[in-house]
Amino acid sequence: MPDLTTAFRQTGWVKRFGWYLCTFFLSLCSQSCTTKETPPSTDNSPSDFLYQYSIINALLAGVFDGNLTFGEVKKHGDFGVGTFNRVDGELVINQGKMYRIRSNGTVSEVSDRDSTSLAFVKFFKADSSFTIQTAGMTLDQVQKKIAAALPVNEIYAIRLKGQFSKMTTRAPAPAQKPYPTLNDHLARTQVIFNLTNTTGVAVGFLIPTYMEKVNVPGFHFHYLSDDLKSGGHVYDFTVTQITVEIDRTKGYYVELNTNADFGKVTL
Amino acid sequence: MPDLTTAFRQTGWVKRFGWYLCTFFLSLCSQSCTTKETPPSTDNSPSDFLYQYSIINALLAGVFDGNLTFGEVKKHGDFGVGTFNRVDGELVINQGKMYRIRSNGTVSEVSDRDSTSLAFVKFFKADSSFTIQTAGMTLDQVQKKIAAALPVNEIYAIRLKGQFSKMTTRAPAPAQKPYPTLNDHLARTQVIFNLTNTTGVAVGFLIPTYMEKVNVPGFHFHYLSDDLKSGGHVYDFTVTQITVEIDRTKGYYVELNTNADFGKVTL
Repeated sequence: MPDLTTAFRQTGWVKRFGWYLCTFFLSLCSQSCTTKETPPSTDNSPSDFLYQYSIINALLAGVFDGNLTFGEVKKHGDFGVGTFNRVDGELVINQGKMYRIRSNGTVSEVSDRDSTSLAFVKFFKADSSFTIQTAGMTLDQVQKKIAAALPVNEIYAIRLKGQFSKMTTRAPAPAQKPYPTLNDHLARTQVIFNLTNTTGVAVGFLIPTYMEKVNVPGFHFHYLSDDLKSGGHVYDFTVTQITVEIDRTKGYYVELNTNADFGKVTL
Repeated sequence: MPDLTTAFRQTGWVKRFGWYLCTFFLSLCSQSCTTKETPPSTDNSPSDFLYQYSIINALLAGVFDGNLTFGEVKKHGDFGVGTFNRVDGELVINQGKMYRIRSNGTVSEVSDRDSTSLAFVKFFKADSSFTIQTAGMTLDQVQKKIAAALPVNEIYAIRLKGQFSKMTTRAPAPAQKPYPTLNDHLARTQVIFNLTNTTGVAVGFLIPTYMEKVNVPGFHFHYLSDDLKSGGHVYDFTVTQITVEIDRTKGYYVELNTNADFGKVTL
């Protein structure tokens, strides 16, 4: 996971002057990208908040089942990431469509009747966007560029759309009871996918450190190729050309997992 | 602050069997209290979530001004605690009425036009209640009794209403810019009130440790006497006789402080 603190520290005096300076900073990369800025939305409805079901520490502790259907999830957002009961794959939600990437590499649409043990979603509405045309930029470099342009201590939904010369993802196999911790499960079952010259979308969030234990601090992306043939939790990528869209949230809300396991673990 | 982990550890096997066992445990104290149990609500609207404006770490870091009026706060709850811009007093909201306890000991109604830098509120609807008639029980003992009866890892709004033989509270004086950290400010300005034989209400929350940095882990109460002449942030009390009402939430949501100071501190 990238060091968010380090990435944010680079903002220097930027963070003292706020959102509108983003346009200035983004314009600095005019040789490699083009910028389009939309004023921050004044929407204060739940749709401008990140919604999440359960918390990351519950998943880390082995709470792999939840009681929320994806029919309910999509009432809270048309964009996001997450997983499934038994951690049976990686979730990508984009433009209201929900997909599962399994450890065998297959991509399938998610049924409204399936359930999740962890999901982070939002109704995505970009407040700003720019393109990166510097072929060869890595995930880490893209993240640093984004973080340097944003006010710190806030929560952002981020969509990266375009071509990637390399994309490394993973997906876990479904767990069997009694469930292990997530790290033990991933160490034993996750499958790594090394994609090349792939076109698609990486959806995710930039989360401040004060949300640790509840969400994943730093950047967190899941990928889905446009041909719906590959994807997963993003480990690394190299850009050919992408558009970056950023949706600044007003905050977040957490619905607790009502599965009995949630009350049995130390969180 | 009480050690929530320790308090919860005492629940032993209780936590493996959930909410309905509360009635059994509460009945164990039949000699000193009477119990009334309401099934957990099935309300999944925002009204059954804790709402909070800003986060505790921002206040700790000296972000003492916010942009949310109390006219807005009361749209999110009729019950709760918090503070005011410049930390000018302690907030008690009960049954929709909002009061400020200042460092000079005065109690006044809060104007809808005043603003807050931190508030935790909910629409209070008790899921269970019981009375404590054991004169002499301390805050710590009351907290342990409540925690032992509740499933862990969840968020509860709690109202304690009745007579207290002793009640120790505090309220801070308003801060001047440049703002110090909260602890420095409290060390210099807070005033302690030692009340005796007071009748009133303590409103507050029980917050799980995974919300540290965002809210106050453990129990957190503010007190208001029925005669509206005293109150403040609760440090300690001794019970004469009280009713305990518990409202189990479905989760929480956080609206970020839009004051520029929020982006200037390490959270």
